[in-house]
Formats: sequence, structure tokens, C-alpha cells
Amino acid sequence: MFTDLPEAQLRDYRSAQVDPADFDEFWAATLEQSRAFDLAVSVKPVYTGLVTVDVFDVTFAGYDGQPVRAWLRVPAGTTEPLATVVQYVGYGGGRGEPTENLFWASAGYAHLHMDTRGQGSSWSIGATPDPDGSGPQGPGFMTRGIESRETYYYRRVITDAVRAVEAARSLPIVDAERVAVLGGSQGGGLALAVAGLVPDLAGVVAYVPFLCDFPRAATITDADPYREIGRFLAVHRGSEEAVHATLAYFDGVNFAKRAVAPASISVALMDSTCPPSTVFGAYNNYAGAKAITVWPYNGHEGGGPQDDVVALAVLRELFDRALTGDAVA
Amino acid sequence: MFTDLPEAQLRDYRSAQVDPADFDEFWAATLEQSRAFDLAVSVKPVYTGLVTVDVFDVTFAGYDGQPVRAWLRVPAGTTEPLATVVQYVGYGGGRGEPTENLFWASAGYAHLHMDTRGQGSSWSIGATPDPDGSGPQGPGFMTRGIESRETYYYRRVITDAVRAVEAARSLPIVDAERVAVLGGSQGGGLALAVAGLVPDLAGVVAYVPFLCDFPRAATITDADPYREIGRFLAVHRGSEEAVHATLAYFDGVNFAKRAVAPASISVALMDSTCPPSTVFGAYNNYAGAKAITVWPYNGHEGGGPQDDVVALAVLRELFDRALTGDAVA
Amino acid sequence: MFTDLPEAQLRDYRSAQVDPADFDEFWAATLEQSRAFDLAVSVKPVYTGLVTVDVFDVTFAGYDGQPVRAWLRVPAGTTEPLATVVQYVGYGGGRGEPTENLFWASAGYAHLHMDTRGQGSSWSIGATPDPDGSGPQGPGFMTRGIESRETYYYRRVITDAVRAVEAARSLPIVDAERVAVLGGSQGGGLALAVAGLVPDLAGVVAYVPFLCDFPRAATITDADPYREIGRFLAVHRGSEEAVHATLAYFDGVNFAKRAVAPASISVALMDSTCPPSTVFGAYNNYAGAKAITVWPYNGHEGGGPQDDVVALAVLRELFDRALTGDAVA
Amino acid sequence: MFTDLPEAQLRDYRSAQVDPADFDEFWAATLEQSRAFDLAVSVKPVYTGLVTVDVFDVTFAGYDGQPVRAWLRVPAGTTEPLATVVQYVGYGGGRGEPTENLFWASAGYAHLHMDTRGQGSSWSIGATPDPDGSGPQGPGFMTRGIESRETYYYRRVITDAVRAVEAARSLPIVDAERVAVLGGSQGGGLALAVAGLVPDLAGVVAYVPFLCDFPRAATITDADPYREIGRFLAVHRGSEEAVHATLAYFDGVNFAKRAVAPASISVALMDSTCPPSTVFGAYNNYAGAKAITVWPYNGHEGGGPQDDVVALAVLRELFDRALTGDAVA
Amino acid sequence: MFTDLPEAQLRDYRSAQVDPADFDEFWAATLEQSRAFDLAVSVKPVYTGLVTVDVFDVTFAGYDGQPVRAWLRVPAGTTEPLATVVQYVGYGGGRGEPTENLFWASAGYAHLHMDTRGQGSSWSIGATPDPDGSGPQGPGFMTRGIESRETYYYRRVITDAVRAVEAARSLPIVDAERVAVLGGSQGGGLALAVAGLVPDLAGVVAYVPFLCDFPRAATITDADPYREIGRFLAVHRGSEEAVHATLAYFDGVNFAKRAVAPASISVALMDSTCPPSTVFGAYNNYAGAKAITVWPYNGHEGGGPQDDVVALAVLRELFDRALTGDAVA
Amino acid sequence: MFTDLPEAQLRDYRSAQVDPADFDEFWAATLEQSRAFDLAVSVKPVYTGLVTVDVFDVTFAGYDGQPVRAWLRVPAGTTEPLATVVQYVGYGGGRGEPTENLFWASAGYAHLHMDTRGQGSSWSIGATPDPDGSGPQGPGFMTRGIESRETYYYRRVITDAVRAVEAARSLPIVDAERVAVLGGSQGGGLALAVAGLVPDLAGVVAYVPFLCDFPRAATITDADPYREIGRFLAVHRGSEEAVHATLAYFDGVNFAKRAVAPASISVALMDSTCPPSTVFGAYNNYAGAKAITVWPYNGHEGGGPQDDVVALAVLRELFDRALTGDAVA
Repeated sequence: MFTDLPEAQLRDYRSAQVDPADFDEFWAATLEQSRAFDLAVSVKPVYTGLVTVDVFDVTFAGYDGQPVRAWLRVPAGTTEPLATVVQYVGYGGGRGEPTENLFWASAGYAHLHMDTRGQGSSWSIGATPDPDGSGPQGPGFMTRGIESRETYYYRRVITDAVRAVEAARSLPIVDAERVAVLGGSQGGGLALAVAGLVPDLAGVVAYVPFLCDFPRAATITDADPYREIGRFLAVHRGSEEAVHATLAYFDGVNFAKRAVAPASISVALMDSTCPPSTVFGAYNNYAGAKAITVWPYNGHEGGGPQDDVVALAVLRELFDRALTGDAVA
Repeated sequence: MFTDLPEAQLRDYRSAQVDPADFDEFWAATLEQSRAFDLAVSVKPVYTGLVTVDVFDVTFAGYDGQPVRAWLRVPAGTTEPLATVVQYVGYGGGRGEPTENLFWASAGYAHLHMDTRGQGSSWSIGATPDPDGSGPQGPGFMTRGIESRETYYYRRVITDAVRAVEAARSLPIVDAERVAVLGGSQGGGLALAVAGLVPDLAGVVAYVPFLCDFPRAATITDADPYREIGRFLAVHRGSEEAVHATLAYFDGVNFAKRAVAPASISVALMDSTCPPSTVFGAYNNYAGAKAITVWPYNGHEGGGPQDDVVALAVLRELFDRALTGDAVA
Repeated sequence: MFTDLPEAQLRDYRSAQVDPADFDEFWAATLEQSRAFDLAVSVKPVYTGLVTVDVFDVTFAGYDGQPVRAWLRVPAGTTEPLATVVQYVGYGGGRGEPTENLFWASAGYAHLHMDTRGQGSSWSIGATPDPDGSGPQGPGFMTRGIESRETYYYRRVITDAVRAVEAARSLPIVDAERVAVLGGSQGGGLALAVAGLVPDLAGVVAYVPFLCDFPRAATITDADPYREIGRFLAVHRGSEEAVHATLAYFDGVNFAKRAVAPASISVALMDSTCPPSTVFGAYNNYAGAKAITVWPYNGHEGGGPQDDVVALAVLRELFDRALTGDAVA
Repeated sequence: MFTDLPEAQLRDYRSAQVDPADFDEFWAATLEQSRAFDLAVSVKPVYTGLVTVDVFDVTFAGYDGQPVRAWLRVPAGTTEPLATVVQYVGYGGGRGEPTENLFWASAGYAHLHMDTRGQGSSWSIGATPDPDGSGPQGPGFMTRGIESRETYYYRRVITDAVRAVEAARSLPIVDAERVAVLGGSQGGGLALAVAGLVPDLAGVVAYVPFLCDFPRAATITDADPYREIGRFLAVHRGSEEAVHATLAYFDGVNFAKRAVAPASISVALMDSTCPPSTVFGAYNNYAGAKAITVWPYNGHEGGGPQDDVVALAVLRELFDRALTGDAVA
Repeated sequence: MFTDLPEAQLRDYRSAQVDPADFDEFWAATLEQSRAFDLAVSVKPVYTGLVTVDVFDVTFAGYDGQPVRAWLRVPAGTTEPLATVVQYVGYGGGRGEPTENLFWASAGYAHLHMDTRGQGSSWSIGATPDPDGSGPQGPGFMTRGIESRETYYYRRVITDAVRAVEAARSLPIVDAERVAVLGGSQGGGLALAVAGLVPDLAGVVAYVPFLCDFPRAATITDADPYREIGRFLAVHRGSEEAVHATLAYFDGVNFAKRAVAPASISVALMDSTCPPSTVFGAYNNYAGAKAITVWPYNGHEGGGPQDDVVALAVLRELFDRALTGDAVA
Repeated sequence: MFTDLPEAQLRDYRSAQVDPADFDEFWAATLEQSRAFDLAVSVKPVYTGLVTVDVFDVTFAGYDGQPVRAWLRVPAGTTEPLATVVQYVGYGGGRGEPTENLFWASAGYAHLHMDTRGQGSSWSIGATPDPDGSGPQGPGFMTRGIESRETYYYRRVITDAVRAVEAARSLPIVDAERVAVLGGSQGGGLALAVAGLVPDLAGVVAYVPFLCDFPRAATITDADPYREIGRFLAVHRGSEEAVHATLAYFDGVNFAKRAVAPASISVALMDSTCPPSTVFGAYNNYAGAKAITVWPYNGHEGGGPQDDVVALAVLRELFDRALTGDAVA
């Protein structure tokens, strides 16, 4: 069943999320602090048994210089710089096995698949620790470090995601002018965050993005992981204001206002994990060129493999434009 | 939690399934009837946007000459015959999108991914109808046509699966001496069935196979789809004997006794969909060379991407042996 | 809890379902095709041990001349033509045992209880096959043959239901001037469909009818069987328009517009299987004389035995009027 | 799935239930106390609209002379004494509508359908109050008055059930030599209890009986209503012994030891409400002639309408024997 | 997620509950009848092993003179009259162990914790029987005796609650001028009822109160115990009007209109057991001085230990005012 | 229902858990490292409004000198050293509000209620951060840092628990000769761990202890938090051996072997969170004097308030013996 407003109202919906006055300063300072560390990119070939795709085990310095892992996949034997897709993973998962997720490399692109620190244990495996601790928190990652914007878990993850783009661009096999970011759910939320923090991306793709419109998301669904916020506040009574003050710095609604790269977003009208109004909350605020794909009968699986098919067509055109320098309509 | 017997007992477990006296005659007649139709293999290139893998839309004549669809994926630009993996799909799914499931072609093999007639609507899309009707049945496919062995749904599907091997071997790009069958869950059950009906396969891979040891499977779990049998019998009281007499012709336990190709099977000790004893019921009866991978802490997802990694190593060795004519230990 | 709009809004609710231009042509052609076959009514006495009711096993030619089963129950020893109730069964069930459902015969009527083809395996037993196959479908009957209006499962079932009335009227024990149709849930949906296709019924009774207002039904509830449509469309992305174009030919909302016989309908305000707006969608469009019974605190069980009590009073009056030729107010 | 021991072990299973030394004295005194009240049978015709069955609203003096309601249904126009079925209702239900449950009267018997005091509000309607109160109790009826055998709810209900047989026998339309008791679930448990307390019944029929083998029932299933006992004891810690001492006076296992009338019992191997061992616990102790029908793939619905078919055949033979005075094999 | 109207609408919400013309007469007569019995207060010391709190086992004559139990807890060695909190228990629970619930005595007050008749078996233990029986009812207490206002279960419980205040005031250790009533859920509903029936209380505290706004409560949630009403009416079709006519005499909305003591109420916006509109339905009608604490992210646990902290501050001030005779703002 | 072996087998059950050769060295080194930091005990009075109990906010240096919070509660106005109960909290909770948990202070003891680092957000509030990070982990605390015994979360928590005893003993109000440890579930597991690491405790009380017999616990139940281990291993395939090698250093079975203080343990036979065999696995290995309370009809709530009553009697006797120097039988 539809889990949210009728589609016509969704298209007009405006999030109530606030825009902290020092949002930009906060993020500038955060990135500056981590950029003080050398990127320290390491790229090691991995034996996979595959013959059409080469896979490399990549490590780079993320938040606070802490090591972050990723897989780099490229068409076998590639020698010249490629248009590149930097992908972020959904909640609870990791970069997986090197033999998984062959789509983007098979499509002829370099594909940097970033691990999510501390996760990678619920549905696909990860290898990146999260060396920072936390105040009292509920199970999961939504309330880790939520006691302040400085300690909040997603401050570290978003910084990792920005640094992943920089790590990609440092590689000879990557055409730095043609880098797009992409992800689904949490990965889509991270793609939107990077879109708000990195100005010169070739494209942004977010499938059914998470991490958007926290004021509404925390009260409109009982599905995890948004529900983690409510469970925490049910015990930490009286912390509502402080928690939402922190979350405002990490909300896709606020990143979207600052984004300029062309974006392709998808949303599913029967999604209770990322209710469609929260996605439209970000989409309707998105400052760059944009298009949205609405999947009326889908839940959080969204467009599934068809989201990839749509994204491939979109990115192919955007990468071509980036080559020729055409503006986006 | 463990869903079945302790592992030590599983390794000694023997299924109570019976072996109908005319099992071989039934299947010989069934295949003969369908082989009377021309294979009518059609192979059409599909535009996918991929550059390292070519995909073709294949149609061939399955049971009773009825058209069955499949995707054929090969490393882009392949010209000479390849070792080939014929894959069957899990319950409820279809062959999916052409852009999915790139693993086997990326590993350098021809990959024929057969659609399952009538299914392809629960988690991945299919395109093959099941033109035959059914007597009274419950929702799903387990009791479709269960009124007799002649009309049972899986008679048609298993025939399709055998014909898929024959269709593959008819293609110039396939090295007919090096064809393996593979699948997970229902796909694994079909691989075992084909292993019992086609004598000269290079290898057989079944991940957490379904369609095994019906007498136990129908009474030891409340998980679908085995549970469909029980729900049907709860209404069709008195049909227990007739239903199990039909099922005996379609049980992996009986196909395994007849199989000679080397097999790699996996099983998960926390699997309630395909409880481990039902898998060991088939494995312990398997007549050919065999190995089993036990995933102690997994449910029906089994080894997931690691099942593929194991299978790739196994098949690589088996295909090499097939090339050199070495016997299997 | 109430599962839908407040009652006042329900009474004003108008379905958004469309009325295909060739709806009448489609059904005229469909019925004509099946009427080309002889009705081939067979009536065989059944030993039940009952003394006040005689039961007969009836077979007649339904859709495409295919055999359809039914029980005929009459007061024991009846010799002259009786007012008759033709009843259709709820989703998943069959005509059951001959010893069940004694109400209508005990009330003095002939009672023809039609089996539903292919069903009869989920909660009451059936004996009628559905000889036609299907394209890819989900478990259940809602998406069987949904690839076109010609192949859709309910085209066959509704034709069976119309032919059941004709079969009843062909029997000496049935007073052809006094035949009513009745059913609950799917059976109620079928009664409405027959009401739209057969002009001279004495009455129509539909308890909490199913198969009404598909555009809303498919998006307002997560309960099966309406949910089957959404699950199918979640995989067959992009088929929304085609699927709903098919369903429009089978929607009680459209049959209701064409119905002229007096109707008694019930609806339950806590019903999530057949949400009340979907029932009012049909009721508010019903063209003949009509009354609705609202059960405020019931779910899909509706009025249960009290629905029968209401129906008996209604039909008694309608049959009396039919005898005397009085018009209905 | 099977919910209990394998069938072979069930057939040998012996309940651990104890037999209180003063069991017979307790029940003799209980019945004597209530028999001190006049039966006060009232029989009033009810208008139902039915023509083959006449229905009467019966009231008689049950436990402590308190009024208990029942429906009496007989073939319309009956004038001479009939073999009679006294039926008890399942947990939570009542005698229902007069227009329901026409099977036994349609089969030519008098059918006295006793209401269950205080219940009749969960799935079928009742009209009999339970005028006695209770100590602290959980929701439901299993722990009402469980503080002593004197106050326990089922003391009153079983007395009502015995008095219902006496009320039936007091009616001119009932052949007092040919009275059988029958019921499903709670109704089956009551039939067994009456079988242990009334010596001259023509037959006893219990479908999937409840109220048997409390020591095992209270610890082997999480399904209500047996689970009510465990929930009560989880709060009333330390009352285990006292509660089970009370329950021993109401256990079908102990009534069965005293029963002499021929019995037909059914049991379902996938029943978690009345696990099969608890039914065999009573059956294996049953002192009279007996037969058991095992439904291997059913849950608590047991044989459904086929349980009735079996019972009709059994009772027909037993009533015939009762007429001719033949002994039962 | 929020389970009801937005907070702004909640603050304006007016219940549709009716105010029976003879509401006051009914309650005056009810109390008069029970006050005809001597209070018969018994106070016995209990050994608990505690050293800072003394506990006494209290019995007094409640409804119809029937004995009702309570714990009286006071700071150890108290000799002079204390301000006193009379507390009522939540649904299904009892007064518990004497060693539980030490908060109010530790805060320096006399604390009379009244048992709830017949309950005390679901989550905390009770010792008070409910000697009166009932008509047909569903499991639980919501429909016990619902056949009339005279026999309704809560008539007895509310009378007990009023008599508990009177029993407290009869004790030398209680300062009769400074008695407050308090409770959560059912206990909160009882506190509101007492507030409407006893004019000279020092304060009223109700956490997430139950027993309010039955017309809405019975149709807006599927959570027990309000759902008990709907389940009863689903079987007792046609009794809606009678049931609601009874409930109107027991609705917190109607008691609130009559209350004059200062009240502190809490409500939780994610509460589905006592949906916030039902609480506001009572609060917005409350005639005395009042304040409400809104817990936005809590379910039925409401403010938990913080509800107590708030109540302690409120009562401290109210008790002080009562001492000095100041009016409440 | 019983969730594990019959009680007789439980009493003989021996865990298969291994005893690492360097278990004692590991813990000696761990404690030595943290004891290198000053205990840094801070004790600040808290205003609570209570009059019989004084509450203090305590901070001390736990693992690695990191600050850990606790509440200290004592009978108001205490001046001389008291026997003392150090309590640990159940999984997900924190030390709660100062106004909660008044039982032990009301019983005349000093009560140090230790917060659990990083938790305190699921059902009761906490205030202690866990400053250390983690490798990839699932939601919750069971797999935090599980990549090695050095980094495992419970290494830090158990060290905190040992230091809490030392912090208590450093306080003038505590009689260092009479300190007992106590807790339920996770708190019980911590009490057992401390019992294995601190030799001179007056007593040990563990209600339904968690953290025992990991090899069995991880495979016998699907209930959290033990299930967290299985979910992690389902993704981190191949890490079974390493994970269990880590867990062996934290298993109550191994701590119990080393414990010498008299212990009172409780277990519930219907507990699926901490299945009874895992508790008996520790109990049957416990080296000191011991007694077990079996709650046959309880789940994980165990004895609830009666566990406290039992513990008070046990500790009173043990504290008396400690005073007089009597040996324990």
C-alpha cells in the first residue's frame, strides 16, 4: 500500500528541516581537518578468477586520516583514464566480495566501491573499522555519537565519502573530470551529501535515498533504521531538540540545497523504510538539474536492477557531456 | 538457531524417500516426448550498454515444444567455443534483467540463464509462460498439476532444464564437452534433477537445493514453499499417499542416485526453507564424485557470494579436467 | 480499527475506475464463444447420510466448454420447481463437501453451489481444474493470465459463473423466473459480475465483495489477495498501465453500472481484505435497486451468519415479488 | 510441520497426569449439589425462515441451578422420539445463531447445541451468563476460579454439560436410550468429561479435544488457550503445585479412564493448539471401545467437515446398535 | 511513529462522547449502595526485610462491601499524619509484592497501592477476587458485565477506587486533607474517575490514562485492551448502541467534566494502546486546574520514571498548598 | 513452553565451552593495565526529592582509566560502613534515573548501581560513553570489537565491573569486607565474571544470567542478543573459529570455574533469551558454594520481584556470616 502522501502532494511537499546558520562552516572545518592527512592511497590487485574485470583492493585515508577500504573494478586490461562511478553502500552492508557488483565495470567504467566504516556485518561483508567510540547509543549506527555534531557517526562517514572521490581522482585510471557518485538507500544519502560538498561532479545518482528529512522521517515510520532515532529518544527523554540540532547537519535536505551537479533520484511509493515524502523533501530542494523516477508499486527495493539501467543511460549522457563540455539542460 | 539434526547426524542421515520402480521409464518417456519437437533455438543480441559482456535473448523449445526463454551471456567479442554454465533460478524468480548476473560471463564462461516457466514475478522478472493448466491447487507452484505425475508442474520445468542443456550444446559458442549445470534453492534442485537425467555433464553445482526429500520436507518445516504441500493436504484430506506418490518422481533424492557428474553442493545449518537434512538426504545418495560445503551460521542465503567463489574454483578445475580428459577423483 | 474513510465519506465515495469503451463488446464476445458449447449439464445423486436435504453432483460446461463442478442441494423429496440461489465461493476455496452449507436448501430453495476453477485448496475443497495456463505470475490467482484481458483468469471464472445460472435454469427443479445469485468476498464479486451480465435475475446478494475498484484496492491495503497485484507490479515494473487496463474489464465497479436486478450488499468498516471504499465504489455505482448493510466493528468476516439471515429475508421478498410480478421499489 | 512426537511414539504415549484419590467423590458431590435444583427445562419455538428444520430455544438449570441456553434443532415436523446428539462448543464461542449448524438435524437427529456459560463472544455468539466471580485471573477462562477445585470455571461448565444430557433426555422428542455427546476442541474436552460422568451414553465423539493432559499441555505449546495457564503461573510464582492439583480434577485424561461409552476421537499431527500427545494422553487411557482418526497434515482445524462425515457414520451405527441392544465390539 | 492526529490538532480535539442525563444519579446511587457497608479497614504489618519503609497489608470494603486489598507503605517509624498518594494499577496487574514500588514512601508520603479486583495475573500479582459474574464476554475485563451499566466490571472497580480514598482517610497515619490519587494507564483512568466523584482531593495524577473517549478509542486502534470492545461487537453484532450507552457512564471524558482537583496528566504521541486523542479527549474536558506533559517519542511507556519525577514535583507543591490553604492558580 | 532440555537433563548438562590456556594471564594483564590508572572516585550528592534514601552520582576510572558512572544509594543519614550490593544492568539499559531501583538501599545496604558503557539507550537511560571504536560489527554490542580478545567490548565492560567493586570498597560508607555483586541477564553475566576475577566477595547473585556458554547459546536460540553472534557470522563466513576463540575469554562458564564466593543463581525454563541450558552450563561449573532457583513457567523475566526477595534473604545471611567470619556450608 502507499505509505505516504498521494503523489501529487509529494511533488509539492517541502521539508520542515532547518538549515543551521553555520552548516557550511561546520563542513568546511570538518573536511579541512581530514584533508590535513595525506590521502595515502594504496591499490593492490586481487585475484578473483574473473577475466573481463580487474579488481583492486584500495585503501585511503578517510576521516581523521583513518584507513578506509574500497574495491576498484575496471574493465580488464584498461590503460587509459576512464569515466568513474564512486559508489556507497546501503545501511548495514560493506563493500562485499571483490567478485560482486560487476555492473559498472562491465559497462566500461572505473568503479570505486567504498566500504562503510564499522558496518559490513548485516548483509554484505566489510573490512573497515570505525576507530571512534560513542556515548550511550542504541543498537545500530543512527545514534552512534549523536551527543554532538562533532562526534556523530555520519560526520566520519560523509567525510570518508568525500575523500573517496578525492582518492578516485588521484588514480591514473580515473578521468578526474568525469567522476559521478552513486548509491542506494544509505548509499544514496551519502551520494547526496557528497553532492552538497563536492562542487565538480559529473553526476549524482541516488536510489531511494536514506538520511533525508529527519524531522519527518523520525515520526512517520516504524521501520528501521529511522526508527532507531525514536527508540533512542524514547529513553533519552528531553533530548529531542539536541538530537535534531545534530541531525540538521547531516540531512540530505540541507545538502541538496547546495548541490549543483545533475542528479537522478528514484523513489518508491510503497517504501516504509525511506518514506517517499522524505525523498521528495530532498529532491524538491535539490539545487542542480534533476530528474526523479517514481516506482509506484515498490517498497524499499525501489527500481532494483532497473534503477541501474536508468542510471547507466543517465550517466552515459552526463559523461559524454562532461567530455564535450556541454552544459546540462 | 540450528533448524535440524546435529551435523554429525546429518552426515549419516538417509532419506526415507522411495524409488518408484518405473522412475527411469517415466523420465525416458517424458524426455522422448519433448525431444520429438525441434529445439528451435533462437539467439538475438540485446543492447545492454555493457562493454565487457555480450548478452543474447535465447528461446528454445522446452517441454512439449513450448518456448522457453533464457539469457546467454559471454565475454564480449568471444569467437571460439567456451566452457559453459547453465544456470537455473530460485523459486518465484525469473531470468531477470539482461544486465544482472554478470559473474559467470565475467569469469570467462558462456552463461545460459534459463527462465522458469510461469514464475518470474516474485523477486526477479521472467518472460516464459506455462501454457498448461492445473487441477485445484494452492497459491504457488508446488501443487500445480499435482493430481498426477503427468500433469505435475515440475515435470515440465525439469524437462525445460534438460532441454536447456541441449540448447546450450547446440550453440557454436558452447563447447559441448564442457557444460556444467548450476543453481541455488529451486535452481539447485533443478541442477540435481538434470544431473540425474543427463549423463555427460562436466559438473553439477547446487547451493542449498530445494525439491529434495519431500516426505521429510513436508513435515519438518513451516516455511514456504515446502509448506505449500502441507497446506494443500490440509484441505485435500486423504490425498497424502497420492501426492507423495507423485512427488517421488521429482525428488532430488532419487535423481541423486542416478547422477554421475562431479557435484559440489552447499547446505546451511540454520536454513528453515530447505532444512539441512533434506539436502543431506540428496547428498548422501549422490552417486557421483561429490563434496559438500556446510555453512553453520547461515539460513537459506547459504554461502551467498562465497558459494559462487567456491563454485568458480570447482568448475575451473572440472572444466580443465574435461579438456584434458582426466578422471575425477 | 476502521481501515478506510469515515462512513459519511464512504457513502459519497466514487471510484476512479475507468469504463473501457468496448467493455460490453468484450463480454458479449466472451459469452458468445462459450455459449457455442453445449451446456452439457450432468446431475448425479450423492449419498450423504442426510435426510432433510438431497444433494447432487452437477457438472456443466463453463468457459470454453470446460467442465465445471457444483453441488445442487434441495429439500428432500422436492418435486416442483423452486426458487433458486446460485452461490459462488470465496477466494481459495471450493464447493466443499456435499454435507456443508445446508442453509439455503433448508430454507426451502434449490441451491447450486458452484466450484471455482483451479482453487479449492486453501480452506475448502474443490474439484474443478483450470485447464488454461498463464504467463509469468505470482502465487495465487490474481495475476494468472493477467498479460491480457483474453487470458486473464477471471475471464474464465466469470464466464463459468454466468453459465452456472444458465445451467441452473436448465434444471426441472429450478424455477427459471426466480433465480438469484449470491456470494461472499470473491463470491460476492462474482455475483456482482453476473448481475452486470445477466439481465433477468430475481436478486443479487454480495457480502463484503472482492474484485471491486482495483485502482484503489491495489494501493490501499497490504492484505492478500489484492496485494498480489502490487507484488506482481513490484517485479513487473512498467506494466502498471497494462495490468490496470486488463483489470478494468473485470471490476465490480463496471459491472455494477450495468446491473438491474435488486441487490443487497454488505460491507465491514474494519475490513482490510476488502476495504470498505472498494465496496462502496461498486455499491455507489450500482444501477438497480439496492440496499447496503454496514457492519461497523467487523473485519472481512462481515456479518457472518447474520449476513445469511438478512439475505434470506431479502430474497424471500424478492422471490415472492417475482412470483407475483410486482416491481421492486 | 509436526508439532509433537512421531506418530508411533504418540500411540504409545502415557500421560503423567495424576488421578486424585477423591476424584469420583468430588464429582459425585458436585453433580448431586446441582441436581438438587429442578431441571426447569423451557423449550420455545424460534422463527428462522427454515423449512426443513425446526429450531427451539431451550433453557435448563445447569450448575447450581443457573440457567443455561441451548438450541434444539430437529427435522421439521418430527413427532416421534429421535436419536439425539448433544453438542458442546469450542473455546470462546457460543451456541451461535439458530440458523447455523444444521448438519445433525438434517441428518435426521435431534440436536441439542449447548451454549458455554460466559463465553460466546470471540467467534460465535452466546447468551448464557456465568454468574459466579473469580479470584485474580488472566484474560480468558482457563484461570477463572483456579484458586480451588470448587471455584474453578470448568466445574460449572462440565456440570452444565452433564445437565444438558439430562435436559435432552427429559424431552419427548428425544429417545433417551440413544443420546450421544459430541464436540470439537473445548467441545471435545467436554464430551470426554461427560463420558466419564454419565454412564449410559450411546456414543462419544471428540474432535481434536482440548482440556487433556494439563501437565504436558501447559509446557509444550505457546498457543492459547493452554498458554493461559503458563501466563498465570509466570505471575503467580509458587502456585504451580496448587494449580495443577486443581486441574487434575478437570483433565480429560482422568475422565477417559472412567468412560465406558464407545468413542470416536480425532487428532491432528500439526496441531499446536491441542498438541497430539495431549489428545493421545486421553485416548490411550480411554476405558471404553474407541477409535482414533489421525489427520497428519492438519492443524487445529483437524478433519473439518470430514470429522462430521466420520462421526455421522460412527453414530449411525452406534444408534442402530442401541436400538437393537447389540454390544459394541 | 505518531499514532494519531498532529499535536496542534490534539490540543483542540473534542471528544464526541455523550454525557448521559442521569450520569450523576447513577454514580450517586452506586456509591451510596456501597457506602452502606462498613469500610471494615484492616491493617496488618508485613515483614519485608526493608528498613527504611514499613509495609502493611490493608483490606477494606469496596463495591458492595466486598473485600479489596492494598499495600500501605510509609517511611519507617512514621508517627504523625502524612500527605498520601492513593495509587491504582495498570490493566492486568495487581498490587504486586510488598517490596516493589518504594518510590512514594521513600519520598516521605503514605502510599496506598490498591489492588484491582480480579486482575493481578498478567504482569504483577494481585490478591483481590471479583466475586461477581458476567454475561457472555471476551477474554479480558473490558466486556465483563458489559450487558448493563449496573453489571459492568468497571462500576465495581471505580467504586473500589473511591472507597480506597475513604479507607486511606480513615487511617491515623493519613492526613485526610492531603490525599492525592495517581496511576498510569488503567490506573490513570481510575484516577480521573475518582477525580470526578470525590470533590476534595489535593491532586490528581494520570499517566497516559486509559478508559477515555470510548467512541474513538474503540475504532482508532487495534491494540488491546481497547480492541476487546471491537472484538466483542464483531460477534455481538447489533449491540453497538447498547455497549456504548453503557460505556458512557465509565468514560474519563465524562468524569473529567466533573473534576475540580488540580490535575497533572501525561500523554505519548507514539502510543497506540491509549492513542493521544483519547487522552486529550479527557484532558480538554477537564474542569479543574490542569497541566499536560507531552512525550513526543514515547509509546505507552509514556514518561516512565520521569513521569514519577514530574508527579513528585507537582504533588509536593500541591500538598504544600493544601497545608497552607492556598488556592491553585 | 519449555525452551530447552528437560530439567533433569539440565541439572546434568555440561557445557562444551573450552578453557583457554592463557585465560588467567589474559585477565591478569587486562586488570593490571587498567589498575595502573588512579580509581579517581568522585561522589556527588543528587537532589531527588526522596527522604529515606540518599543518592550520589559516582564516577570512577574503569577500563583504561576511562570514566564510568554509577548511582550510589544509601539509607538517608547513614554514617557508618554498610554491607554493600554492587549491581550491574541488563543489556541495552543504563543506570536509569536516581529515583529508580530503591530496593537495596531501602533494605539497609549501600547500593552501587554501575552504568554500562555505551548502552543505556534501549530501556533505561545511561550516561557512560564507550570511547573505543570497533571493527565491522552488527547492530548491538555483542560483536563490537569481536575481531580480537583485546578489542572485544566486554573486555572493557568486565574490567569496569571489577573496578566498580574496587571503587565501592574505597568509599567510607562501604564495609569492604561485605561486598556482594548482583545483576540480572547481562548484569548476571557480569556478576559471574566478577566472581571469577575478584576472590573475596561476600556473595554473588545472578538472575537468569546472560554471557554464558556461547557455543550452545549461539546455535540454540533465535532471540537477541545471542542471535547477534549468528547474524554476524552469517555475513563473516569463515570467522566462526576466530569469533568463538575470542568469546571463550568472556564466557560465564569459564569464570564460574574460578569463582569461590557463595552464589545464588536463578534460571527460567521458558526463557528463550538466555536458554536454561546456558545458565546451567555456568552453574554446573561454579566452583564455590551455590544454589539455584528454578522458575518453571517464566521466560526471561525470571523471578521478577521474587528474585529480589530470594536474593535479600540470601545476602542477609551471607553478610551476617561475613561479619562473624563463619564459613559457608
